[in-house]
Amino acid sequence: MNSYTRLNQEHIKILQQIFTQNRVLFGEAIAEEYGHDELSGMIAMPQAVVQPLSAAEVSQLLRFASEQQIAVTPRGQGTGLVGGCVPVCGGILLDMSKMNHILELDMDNLTLTVEPGDLLMDVAKFVEERQLFYPPDPGEKSASIGGNISTNAGGMRAVKYGVTRDYIRGLEVVLTNGTILNLSGKVAKNSSGYDLKDLIIGSEGTLAVVTKAILKLVPYPAETISLLIPFADLSAAISTVPLILQSRTNPVALEFFERETIMAAENFLGKRFPDHSAPAYLLVSFDGNSLAEIEHVYEAAAELCLKNGALDVLIADTTERKESIWSARSAFLEGIKAAAGEIDECDVVVPRKSVAEFMQFAHSLEAEYGVGMRGFGHAGDGNLHIYAMRENMQESDWQKGKKAVMEALYRRAEFYEGQVSGEHGIGWEKQDYLLERLGEAQISLMQAVKLVFDPSCILNPQKIFKMK
Amino acid sequence: MNSYTRLNQEHIKILQQIFTQNRVLFGEAIAEEYGHDELSGMIAMPQAVVQPLSAAEVSQLLRFASEQQIAVTPRGQGTGLVGGCVPVCGGILLDMSKMNHILELDMDNLTLTVEPGDLLMDVAKFVEERQLFYPPDPGEKSASIGGNISTNAGGMRAVKYGVTRDYIRGLEVVLTNGTILNLSGKVAKNSSGYDLKDLIIGSEGTLAVVTKAILKLVPYPAETISLLIPFADLSAAISTVPLILQSRTNPVALEFFERETIMAAENFLGKRFPDHSAPAYLLVSFDGNSLAEIEHVYEAAAELCLKNGALDVLIADTTERKESIWSARSAFLEGIKAAAGEIDECDVVVPRKSVAEFMQFAHSLEAEYGVGMRGFGHAGDGNLHIYAMRENMQESDWQKGKKAVMEALYRRAEFYEGQVSGEHGIGWEKQDYLLERLGEAQISLMQAVKLVFDPSCILNPQKIFKMK
Repeated sequence: MNSYTRLNQEHIKILQQIFTQNRVLFGEAIAEEYGHDELSGMIAMPQAVVQPLSAAEVSQLLRFASEQQIAVTPRGQGTGLVGGCVPVCGGILLDMSKMNHILELDMDNLTLTVEPGDLLMDVAKFVEERQLFYPPDPGEKSASIGGNISTNAGGMRAVKYGVTRDYIRGLEVVLTNGTILNLSGKVAKNSSGYDLKDLIIGSEGTLAVVTKAILKLVPYPAETISLLIPFADLSAAISTVPLILQSRTNPVALEFFERETIMAAENFLGKRFPDHSAPAYLLVSFDGNSLAEIEHVYEAAAELCLKNGALDVLIADTTERKESIWSARSAFLEGIKAAAGEIDECDVVVPRKSVAEFMQFAHSLEAEYGVGMRGFGHAGDGNLHIYAMRENMQESDWQKGKKAVMEALYRRAEFYEGQVSGEHGIGWEKQDYLLERLGEAQISLMQAVKLVFDPSCILNPQKIFKMK
Repeated sequence: MNSYTRLNQEHIKILQQIFTQNRVLFGEAIAEEYGHDELSGMIAMPQAVVQPLSAAEVSQLLRFASEQQIAVTPRGQGTGLVGGCVPVCGGILLDMSKMNHILELDMDNLTLTVEPGDLLMDVAKFVEERQLFYPPDPGEKSASIGGNISTNAGGMRAVKYGVTRDYIRGLEVVLTNGTILNLSGKVAKNSSGYDLKDLIIGSEGTLAVVTKAILKLVPYPAETISLLIPFADLSAAISTVPLILQSRTNPVALEFFERETIMAAENFLGKRFPDHSAPAYLLVSFDGNSLAEIEHVYEAAAELCLKNGALDVLIADTTERKESIWSARSAFLEGIKAAAGEIDECDVVVPRKSVAEFMQFAHSLEAEYGVGMRGFGHAGDGNLHIYAMRENMQESDWQKGKKAVMEALYRRAEFYEGQVSGEHGIGWEKQDYLLERLGEAQISLMQAVKLVFDPSCILNPQKIFKMK
């Protein structure tokens, strides 16, 4: 394991020369939020926070930190769930939030060039005002684009549109030796050497620092509609998912959740969900370019569900109705958190036919370990979000219980040939599970790739895997 | 540069132990076709050809070859265009064509698990008979899936559906140390460590040998329609491309070509194309789930083209009409080859607004260097196929002329921030252009990644870049 240099006054002075105009924070000026993310239990404060305005500044910093063997941890908005942005080795926190400009909209190539600190919601608003669409739709809209790239964030529209990776045409990145590289570009396809762009996407800030991204846009769909479909139990709901996907209805989103999750969100938001009478639900949405086109499609899907055990089909075709459903969906995590006090999360992805069995298994752990379990997720792509809830447990019981249920969940995911994370990443928290799932040989390859990009291991150290 | 061990009788004996039942060819038993691919000028014979039936055999071979420092060059159907499968360092040719079984159709997860030797046309037929669709559609249907993965092949439907990369859910690969790894799997998304799967895709067999692939399928679209749209010149044709892509018509394919290319294909096929009266054409296709849906769409697209300078819009809605157009489109390369005697090819991809300018530039080289130039390609994604034609040139003039025009084309692509290859790869032929385009820093990273996977540099040596 590498050891890192602690910053001294000399180092701080050099940082102040690079990051003029008070863009170096140290000591008490460092806000508490820089020491943690949205969910993970890991807390660690950096010795200094720097706020670059350009790739050139990032380059200077990384060269300096490499020479001095100082740990550097990049951070977007800190909305991650697995400790990816927590500076576990201290050193310098690289706060990218001031690099937040939209640089260029290219209508001929349908691309938007952005800085990594741009917020997802700002990018979405910017393009939607111009009748364009950036489809990736993670629940956390205040995340930064750089953060989304670092975890290859997925979200609600992945069934039809894919994930962040599918909308990144090109990247500008800075290596730890200070080199600034452009990977791919505005081109729509590329077979020119190794795909370093996709290697950086999802690498959680451990290989290079993203300083610019060229996003792929598509025309904004003219019409969208959502169906809320109650079922008598989760198995019945999930068993219709392959049928919907085999049909020619091409859903945008295909979510599942259980009554308890809705009720937690209702309590959290202080608002009623359109329905909570059934034990399990699918939420399916469609988009298209004319109402006629999507009416045809959603009627086919509704009929298919009713034939296969749906209790009803509630159509959300007004803005208000859609808003009330999807805002509740976006509050599921917050709702569970509020109800549970403390939670731990598992973001496994399994082949989608195994989703119902997996959720049954998760619930079976409640009796075995005394830990409340809630789950919801992306039925269309097999990505589940399962939460262990502390509720009134004693600290020691909770620590023991959550460890046991998490281990059981990840082992079960392996049984289904699933993967540890569908969209939240590995970060600090999920390393043991990744190692167990992928094995030494695959992790060793990743470690060797890490050394190619970052021979001093200064960049987001101890994330995804420990270095030997 | 590495040097490789020449095979001796002892080596051949060991190969015969691994590859029983006459699956080792050597000496005169090696057919001439093993020494070249479809287009590149490079010819080099291997000392032995082996034909594995399993990942275990590939593993044994690679371990043996690593220990003995023997070059191993993987080969699918040899339909590549840049010398990627030519055994330039001799040694062993790894002929994957006997690993050609379709292993599993999983209807719940909509995946097809195949061996790399399966032909694209066989996979397409297998899934289409079941009303399913594997969208990647490179012109060469007799290519193998393994070959398509190695170059990240694109093809005609990339505008709507993306390229090979977008339809590979998981890979089984063998490393040169003999380790067999599964990268990702049937899961629809994944944020679990570095994206080694996408690093292998497009790496042209230089990092690992693919022994199994899990393909993503979608439902077969119920209806397709194509529009053949003549224009007075190529600029007028290309300038409508961004308008079509900004509209909500979501074309599957958006091809451009010039009259001369049609006429070469007519001569080659001995069949007439529906029209060759105009200097330039767009060929646009749409698919959808009902005729009503795509009629709406293609009428909008047709109107848009007529408003922006199209001379006419010819609708191909019968199977015969579509077949006659698309079979001609697939014969463009063969047509040009037949007309020119010998050709050299450039497969650049540029931001799509630059396509017309780029073609004008290509034609301007005819006068300057005396080399005939033809081009066609994927207007929707900016991927051009431009051919230098030998015709009646003397050998020395041709060698000089083609080198000069290729250099000029690649330099021009750089000016537009394009990339060296959109879908054919770098292989043996395009290395100098890749180095010039990406620069030492980026190529050095790739070389270091190569050493992580293949420390002895035995696997497809001297491809994409030379090792130091």
